[in-house]
Amino acid sequence: MIAPFSFRLIVSDAGARLGEFVTRHGRVRTPAFMPVGTQGTVKGLSPEDVRETGTEIVLGNTYHLMLRPGAERIAALGGLHKFMNWPLPILTDSGGFQVMSLSDLRKVDERAVTFRSHLDGAMLELTPEHAIEIQMLLGADVAMQLDECLKLPATHSEITRAMQLSLRWAERSKRAFETREREGYALFGIVQGGDDLTLRINSARALTTIGFHGYAIGGLAVGEPSELMLKIVAETTPLLPAECPRYLMGVGTPHDLIEAVARGIDMFDCVLPTRNGRHGMAFTRYGAINLANARHANDSRPLDAESPHPAARTYSRAYLHHLTKANEILGAVLLSTINLAYYQALMAGMREAIAARRFAEFCEHTRTQWERGDLPAP
Amino acid sequence: MIAPFSFRLIVSDAGARLGEFVTRHGRVRTPAFMPVGTQGTVKGLSPEDVRETGTEIVLGNTYHLMLRPGAERIAALGGLHKFMNWPLPILTDSGGFQVMSLSDLRKVDERAVTFRSHLDGAMLELTPEHAIEIQMLLGADVAMQLDECLKLPATHSEITRAMQLSLRWAERSKRAFETREREGYALFGIVQGGDDLTLRINSARALTTIGFHGYAIGGLAVGEPSELMLKIVAETTPLLPAECPRYLMGVGTPHDLIEAVARGIDMFDCVLPTRNGRHGMAFTRYGAINLANARHANDSRPLDAESPHPAARTYSRAYLHHLTKANEILGAVLLSTINLAYYQALMAGMREAIAARRFAEFCEHTRTQWERGDLPAP
Repeated sequence: MIAPFSFRLIVSDAGARLGEFVTRHGRVRTPAFMPVGTQGTVKGLSPEDVRETGTEIVLGNTYHLMLRPGAERIAALGGLHKFMNWPLPILTDSGGFQVMSLSDLRKVDERAVTFRSHLDGAMLELTPEHAIEIQMLLGADVAMQLDECLKLPATHSEITRAMQLSLRWAERSKRAFETREREGYALFGIVQGGDDLTLRINSARALTTIGFHGYAIGGLAVGEPSELMLKIVAETTPLLPAECPRYLMGVGTPHDLIEAVARGIDMFDCVLPTRNGRHGMAFTRYGAINLANARHANDSRPLDAESPHPAARTYSRAYLHHLTKANEILGAVLLSTINLAYYQALMAGMREAIAARRFAEFCEHTRTQWERGDLPAP
Repeated sequence: MIAPFSFRLIVSDAGARLGEFVTRHGRVRTPAFMPVGTQGTVKGLSPEDVRETGTEIVLGNTYHLMLRPGAERIAALGGLHKFMNWPLPILTDSGGFQVMSLSDLRKVDERAVTFRSHLDGAMLELTPEHAIEIQMLLGADVAMQLDECLKLPATHSEITRAMQLSLRWAERSKRAFETREREGYALFGIVQGGDDLTLRINSARALTTIGFHGYAIGGLAVGEPSELMLKIVAETTPLLPAECPRYLMGVGTPHDLIEAVARGIDMFDCVLPTRNGRHGMAFTRYGAINLANARHANDSRPLDAESPHPAARTYSRAYLHHLTKANEILGAVLLSTINLAYYQALMAGMREAIAARRFAEFCEHTRTQWERGDLPAP
């Protein structure tokens, strides 16, 4: 017997929530970080590598997968889990955000978003119903409604129009999902409204009335300052049902993660650990470290001798520097792995701290370590 | 107590030799294939990945490592084994071949080769003595003499001149090595002479008189047809001492490997398994397979359900095709790993066959499988 999708809030501490949700493919402890598997792979990591970092759920990008290799093809091959050899839960976005950021030509109307493929220039369209169908073909444990995501800053009327359209698309997404709903799968709505609190309130209330398994805060991490993003998060989370998971899309830095958890967020996704890893940057408890910097060239010490991940303890900074300068695949692989392991250790640390009702203390300690900066030169 | 470098010929069968040699960092069973770790990493694989393929020795490129990060730096960091986290034997080339193939400006005289760095344009020189010093700083278990390697075809007088210079450099290399010789480390001489049998004979005899721990056949796999290469190998190996390992440099395809083992070769190095893996080509018992080909797009079968390596059994051809088309790091990583595992399984198969005195039968069976080609479409 397959249980329905369910979220359980275990305990709150200092605004932060410890919980877990269960999907068709297993349990996810929250606060949770989802690495991004854009094209059916978390860039640079094997599925085994991803699991070893402590990851319990990954994100797939509907836009990329519908273009290549195609949702029907993945379905015929047994679904995304089987295709990418990832047996644990998968959340897919709806494709709306990537249409905005990757297509140089797009048109939004009531019915659909029409856009040009960045791969072959073909004109394609995505309706809310089609976005749900694609995500079901992929076999996503958690699907997202199609929304219209604007870049900030934008005019008030533009933000209002996009938020209201996204609400109507939320209703259509819900209807499309319900016609096919299966046990253990979930659909999340997305709060829009830019940096306007009144719009965010209206969006959150209307979505709650429609009713979703979880609620995302979208339209952030699109160029606005971190302080503004956190202010909007702080004002939005109280409007969302406490008994559902809350997902802050596209966020963020380690700093953003602890600040957003402190404001009641349960889930995150971001390309930073893997993208920055490919460019020679390591996230550590000493803060961010640029391995391309010449000061590491003769440093025989590991990145972090106390890291839970062996790669951060095994290889010297000098070797990681060399791999980065020489543009070697192994450098991208090791730093992506080390970064994702740091992110997941940070999430696990937050979960333990909330359980022990020491979340504020944990955050203070973590920030102090970051501010102290990297090890002094040897 | 550290044993001296030693080679033991266990048994011969149909021209092929089963043996093993012992260096400071362990035992290597022959025939052996050495993956190429040009810049202190076998491209795309972690050291653990490399070991899991059955690899017992890797090759490092002196030319690349002397330019970046520098031999003195690697020595200060504890040597190449520690730097790249590879505890098993390492053979380094002398740098001569890379000077020929990568530097756009070079001048060879009696004393040294002078060349322009392909990284920063600096003019540098390499003497036979300096090449030995660098390889000792790296900590190579097996060092190679500096030689002059020509592209074929070349004129007879050019080949003669380069062969004779390489012999004089062999003597200088031996003297430089002996002033620093340590237990468990070895120096190999390199037979030159292009496609001229008389020159090859002269080179092999003169090198044997100088006396090395092992003998390489150089100046091949530089553009000549495979048949010519194998003819020269067949004519050269009988001239080399049976009690020393014989190394065919820069070779080759799986076909070349079995043909050269049949002609008495014990060691190989080649970039093919990793380089071709990065470009979507898999080496399998069905022959070479181009994963970029659209016929794999919907194929749910693994590359080879009976492969000894899990990656070749786990991922579908459709997924490997997708990763290749999407230019994903994981595609390069998986195919490089699968290819190296195939190479090492082929070497292990040859060793077992020689031990069982069934080498000719093994080769026949392997060739038949290759010629049968890939699986029919599903």
